[in-house]
Amino acid sequence: MVAIKRIEQTLETAIDRASGPGCPPKLAAAMRHAVFPGGARIRPRLCLAVAHACGDDRPELTEAAAAAIELLHCASLVHDDLPCFDDAATRRGRPSVHAAFGEPVAVLAGDAMIVLAFETLARHIGQAPDRVAKLMQAVAQAVGGPSGIVAGQAWESEPLAVLQTYQRAKTGSLFVAATACGAAAAGADPVAWHDLGDRLGEAYQVADDLHDAAASEGEMGKPVGQDAAHHRPSAALELGVSGAVTRLERLVQGAVEAIPPCRNAGDLEALVKQEAKRLLPKSLARHAA
Amino acid sequence: MVAIKRIEQTLETAIDRASGPGCPPKLAAAMRHAVFPGGARIRPRLCLAVAHACGDDRPELTEAAAAAIELLHCASLVHDDLPCFDDAATRRGRPSVHAAFGEPVAVLAGDAMIVLAFETLARHIGQAPDRVAKLMQAVAQAVGGPSGIVAGQAWESEPLAVLQTYQRAKTGSLFVAATACGAAAAGADPVAWHDLGDRLGEAYQVADDLHDAAASEGEMGKPVGQDAAHHRPSAALELGVSGAVTRLERLVQGAVEAIPPCRNAGDLEALVKQEAKRLLPKSLARHAA
Repeated sequence: MVAIKRIEQTLETAIDRASGPGCPPKLAAAMRHAVFPGGARIRPRLCLAVAHACGDDRPELTEAAAAAIELLHCASLVHDDLPCFDDAATRRGRPSVHAAFGEPVAVLAGDAMIVLAFETLARHIGQAPDRVAKLMQAVAQAVGGPSGIVAGQAWESEPLAVLQTYQRAKTGSLFVAATACGAAAAGADPVAWHDLGDRLGEAYQVADDLHDAAASEGEMGKPVGQDAAHHRPSAALELGVSGAVTRLERLVQGAVEAIPPCRNAGDLEALVKQEAKRLLPKSLARHAA
Repeated sequence: MVAIKRIEQTLETAIDRASGPGCPPKLAAAMRHAVFPGGARIRPRLCLAVAHACGDDRPELTEAAAAAIELLHCASLVHDDLPCFDDAATRRGRPSVHAAFGEPVAVLAGDAMIVLAFETLARHIGQAPDRVAKLMQAVAQAVGGPSGIVAGQAWESEPLAVLQTYQRAKTGSLFVAATACGAAAAGADPVAWHDLGDRLGEAYQVADDLHDAAASEGEMGKPVGQDAAHHRPSAALELGVSGAVTRLERLVQGAVEAIPPCRNAGDLEALVKQEAKRLLPKSLARHAA
């Protein structure tokens, strides 16, 4: 089965479970709205690609890990869009969850999706306890304190934040989880895959900063210019647009070089290069071409 | 070691881990503020009491389960106090987390504590995978969708809510998790312990409604009269104060009768009766005496 189908089916099953009989209707609808239709699913696809590179001998575990990562990503977007953070009315070209269902339901949907991510992994403890233990550790580290996504967002409430620390926590951590979990699900050493995730996460963050600074709202499906408006650290604001483009290219090259020895390294290298092309805002890609 | 000390030490270790080196200072302080000093720790003490009744042959697993339950309870309080829910400025006689640290940090601290709860359990997969799988299932069911705490709070955003469904999800579910996890941590069948948790949860909810309707803010350390103000379903509003007191007494008696056969049933029965005395607001207890 192709990667995207494996991801969507696993997410469907998980959301069905969490929003099953007895669930308050708005909460159920809000969780579904937060997860479907998805964005690029870049993190779970990365997880599947790394698992494939490592042999993917327990595909159902890989799928659970990929879904858990995507659920946590979507939960972070729901909370990040709340009025007390970005106050974003739109996401992926549609109303944000709080705009569609109200702020209380948005807070609760995010909470429920965090729980669902861990529950999705926990269902596989019986089949592969050692691997699930590693998956849970990687995922918890990526989203919790002291240096996961929540820490990244919390740096926005501090008077002083180091750009790299902030971005590594807010964005990089879940890319590291994606590569680490892909490896762990296939029985490989997750730590050897941290460096690849770290570099891809940084590349993605630079691309995201570029989009916020240089793309249009129509292209993005959400408000742009938010980093400047919220005085948030941004590579595009710090290095300028062309400086940030150069940095992005170097990071992708470094990522390719950071792929550890593995069974299907060639496939993974091709995928990383292909994804990198999609990272630049269309207007800048036209400029570059 | 006495129960309360085991609980506090396990919570200390967990919070230290989540707020370790690199953690944004406000996020670290907010998590600590949410957990220490604690309330009555009624849920983790219940978990420990049930584990003791079942033999408690893996005390470190029992402690992890008790801490996870308390972390999830504290996280729910932090989010429940937010401006979009109760907008409570105080909790346990001190500023609520959002009043002390701002709304963004309060949302994130709650998120981080949910993650920490699962991470705390996951650390024991290696030693007792089958028991941890049951613990995680019980905990996820108690806090996530379709019928855990988040569902309970989400019923407040629906036009129609059945009082029992609402309260069972919002309060009862974590009491069921407390008894189920106490049993599962000690290797007993968690499902046999659901009924006890269910009855104790309902008793506690009735007591909480009574406090909100009949106690003073000084006694509670938080605003009272919130159920009426927010038009929330409440046993005290529905049955009247004396009707609710009668209901509470019957529920406690039913709880004692619901204790399954186990090694130390007598200790547990004594504890349940002792706790029940503390549930009534002081003014009503004086009336009753």
